[in-house]
Amino acid sequence: MLIANAVLADGTRHHIDIEGGRIAALLPAAPGVPAHADVLDVAGALLLPPLVDGHIHLDKTLLGLPWVPNQAAGNKVSDRIEAERKVRSARTVPEAETGSNLVRQVVASGTLHMRSHVDIDNQLGLRNLHEVLKIRERFRDLVTLQIVAFPQSGIVRSPGTADLLDAAIAEGADLVGGLDPVGIDGDLDGHLDAIFAIAERRGVGVDIHLHDGGESGIAQLIAIAERTTASGLQGKAAVSHAFALGSVPTDVAARTADVLARAGVAIMSHGPGGAPIPPLALLRQHGVKVFGGSDNIRDAWSPFGNGDMLERAMMIGYRANFRHDHELKFAFEMVTDAAACVLGLEAYGIAVGAAADFVAVEAGSVAEAVVARPRRKLVIRAGKVVAKDGVLTV
Amino acid sequence: MLIANAVLADGTRHHIDIEGGRIAALLPAAPGVPAHADVLDVAGALLLPPLVDGHIHLDKTLLGLPWVPNQAAGNKVSDRIEAERKVRSARTVPEAETGSNLVRQVVASGTLHMRSHVDIDNQLGLRNLHEVLKIRERFRDLVTLQIVAFPQSGIVRSPGTADLLDAAIAEGADLVGGLDPVGIDGDLDGHLDAIFAIAERRGVGVDIHLHDGGESGIAQLIAIAERTTASGLQGKAAVSHAFALGSVPTDVAARTADVLARAGVAIMSHGPGGAPIPPLALLRQHGVKVFGGSDNIRDAWSPFGNGDMLERAMMIGYRANFRHDHELKFAFEMVTDAAACVLGLEAYGIAVGAAADFVAVEAGSVAEAVVARPRRKLVIRAGKVVAKDGVLTV
Repeated sequence: MLIANAVLADGTRHHIDIEGGRIAALLPAAPGVPAHADVLDVAGALLLPPLVDGHIHLDKTLLGLPWVPNQAAGNKVSDRIEAERKVRSARTVPEAETGSNLVRQVVASGTLHMRSHVDIDNQLGLRNLHEVLKIRERFRDLVTLQIVAFPQSGIVRSPGTADLLDAAIAEGADLVGGLDPVGIDGDLDGHLDAIFAIAERRGVGVDIHLHDGGESGIAQLIAIAERTTASGLQGKAAVSHAFALGSVPTDVAARTADVLARAGVAIMSHGPGGAPIPPLALLRQHGVKVFGGSDNIRDAWSPFGNGDMLERAMMIGYRANFRHDHELKFAFEMVTDAAACVLGLEAYGIAVGAAADFVAVEAGSVAEAVVARPRRKLVIRAGKVVAKDGVLTV
Repeated sequence: MLIANAVLADGTRHHIDIEGGRIAALLPAAPGVPAHADVLDVAGALLLPPLVDGHIHLDKTLLGLPWVPNQAAGNKVSDRIEAERKVRSARTVPEAETGSNLVRQVVASGTLHMRSHVDIDNQLGLRNLHEVLKIRERFRDLVTLQIVAFPQSGIVRSPGTADLLDAAIAEGADLVGGLDPVGIDGDLDGHLDAIFAIAERRGVGVDIHLHDGGESGIAQLIAIAERTTASGLQGKAAVSHAFALGSVPTDVAARTADVLARAGVAIMSHGPGGAPIPPLALLRQHGVKVFGGSDNIRDAWSPFGNGDMLERAMMIGYRANFRHDHELKFAFEMVTDAAACVLGLEAYGIAVGAAADFVAVEAGSVAEAVVARPRRKLVIRAGKVVAKDGVLTV
């Protein structure tokens, strides 16, 4: 198969030869359509690598159900944890179904790889993991789904959860998660002891939600960096949100960035609306891998979101006050190359030997694609069209 | 004409009888389609009042042109003013054309009323006003277009601008604008003297851009409130942005809100990405009319924006950390009823006697419409369909 007349992110026009689901050659395009048995002429559309969602919650979404109003009594993380319990107990449609609704929607918008956190606590046990494993199996030929065993109710304050996290890894989760070691669990060392013990024992990475702000959040980031180095997990650790980095003076953020960079701890941001956004450009300048994710989508936590990672790049850019093309490109890299790197995806990107996965849009540049978020003309997986004009075709 | 089976914002289902472009009757709907000569059955779609954009810049947008990268050298308002001069001098397509592109796009998204600021300074003269007056004339049967004579380069520091603003009102602008009396003009009294003298002489309202933050911004807000009262302009004055209200302690914001409410000064917010957002709920609690607008759309100031006011309500809600239905409804009111009130629109809303203007969407509630921003099924102006499925039909 040959994808003809694709404009790549650098503005060059290429034909892309595909063999066995991989990119066999990138051929500078002469005008016109080449003679080839099986040509897909994209007629000058911008061809991008597939979008990557570095932080999603497939078990939480209520997508596809009638509207469920937010019920949190207050504005704290703990209020939302409580509200979610109520919404969960009122559920009549299994998480595997609503999560599948979301996967279909994100694939149609060009996302082919994602990291989903999955709630685990001593009331839920591994129920949500089993639901998300069903989703992974159902869409195995369509998307890469990485699973984080996520202690949504804490570890220390939710006895038995550490064992459940360990069991989750045994049953197929790919990473061990964490949540506000101080703000939720009130025990920095206890929380991190549990997480890193599992990570070391099971040989998996970590991805820790950290909403705690200010100096406490910074202290936790530094502790996580130290643990990461001690456990030899450099490059396999991430902290999601890290609002603290956006709520401290720039010099403190810069020093913390150096510590994170040395320890190989990546930072995920969804471009928060109501919380401080970490200084993304500063973090990257200091060598921290910065990546993007959706976070909550139409669930008990947030009414917002739709899983469109081009829109997410726009939200990140808008929130970070990115206006120049190189900044918008950075936001795009957060939901493509950088997220792919953090997820450890092999054969990602538009290069000879990589998987023949693409998203085609009508846009004059990556910057324009980010701000305009045009309809996805085509989504291609392993050389096969899987969505067209925003609608799934498989 | 009868619009049948419309679900209104309160969840009730009505048939809407239209005569002479106005709503003649709201009839509680029995199931089925009534017998009527000319029925438009919207089959349970949510029927909303038309969207109102309280702050747009029709003369600045580059919409419809090939992508123009942002060229501002720095991140200050003055850097962007400079960058805009370069972009403007490189223009080959008149503002009336690009502005018309934007009007077509916003009408297709359900906006039928807007307030556009128009740049006026001693280099431009009234050129941009003349361009926007062409747009107003072109779309006179489709949209209400209110024009603010906006001193984008300042007044005191741009000699001759005050006379130009006055002349702009004489030529058809509806309000006199202002811009950071301290931050740009360095002369609070001089700037406000000029604006309020014109407003009093011409009998028009004022709408002042205020980016200046902190205590200086608060002092300027209070000065604007005092001038408004002294000039008898209560209810005809607005301050756009007012980032200062989001950058001071809550008690200062609350006291300032009381002053603004007493003076009848409204506050416009577009849900800024990189600047502090005013405490919208607090302002409303204190009696301030809070309304929404797009601000810059694909211009020399910002690459973002598309003029979709449902998306704008989403951005405002996301930025203000609104998650509950009553908060999302507030964001919606900012781009409908509240903006209509500030613009002084008569016969606005879904009520007997009001103009038969509507937007129909598939959504279960106003809250869902804000977060999901569904395609606009129908946009109706004076009882006539003017856009369908997001595409202009006139």
